[in-house]
Amino acid sequence: MSEAVFFHAGCPVCVSAEQHFIQALDPARYAVEVVDLGKQKNRIAQAERYGVVSVPALVIDGQPFHINFGAALADLK
Amino acid sequence: MSEAVFFHAGCPVCVSAEQHFIQALDPARYAVEVVDLGKQKNRIAQAERYGVVSVPALVIDGQPFHINFGAALADLK
Repeated sequence: MSEAVFFHAGCPVCVSAEQHFIQALDPARYAVEVVDLGKQKNRIAQAERYGVVSVPALVIDGQPFHINFGAALADLK
Repeated sequence: MSEAVFFHAGCPVCVSAEQHFIQALDPARYAVEVVDLGKQKNRIAQAERYGVVSVPALVIDGQPFHINFGAALADLK
């Protein structure tokens, strides 16, 4: 089981990505943690260490993938 | 089984997205077609109809999701 983290901020672009995209991942192989950076600001540093610069973003195997564009991390601080 | 189309153009960002990201989709639910728009220019019009403006992009259930940024579709024509 690999870990994946979906960082979002509750924005419409984020919700769309979560509903259509994250649910498509293989549940037999990926345990997806969903983190709302708007509410969990203490996780922003972790997101930045992964290389995340905007949300929504999905980190798979430590690699960040930015999906469309909802909000810059800098705007959430 | 739902259909998903991964549009790319052979760029390094595209290859990374394919290797780390597309392989994570649930194969029991999604049949992913991979289309290289650099080689299959006749599919660019289809990508545009889905709302794709850059690659790599994944279309799930008719909805486009742009992943990071490799190349603009306009540059592939």
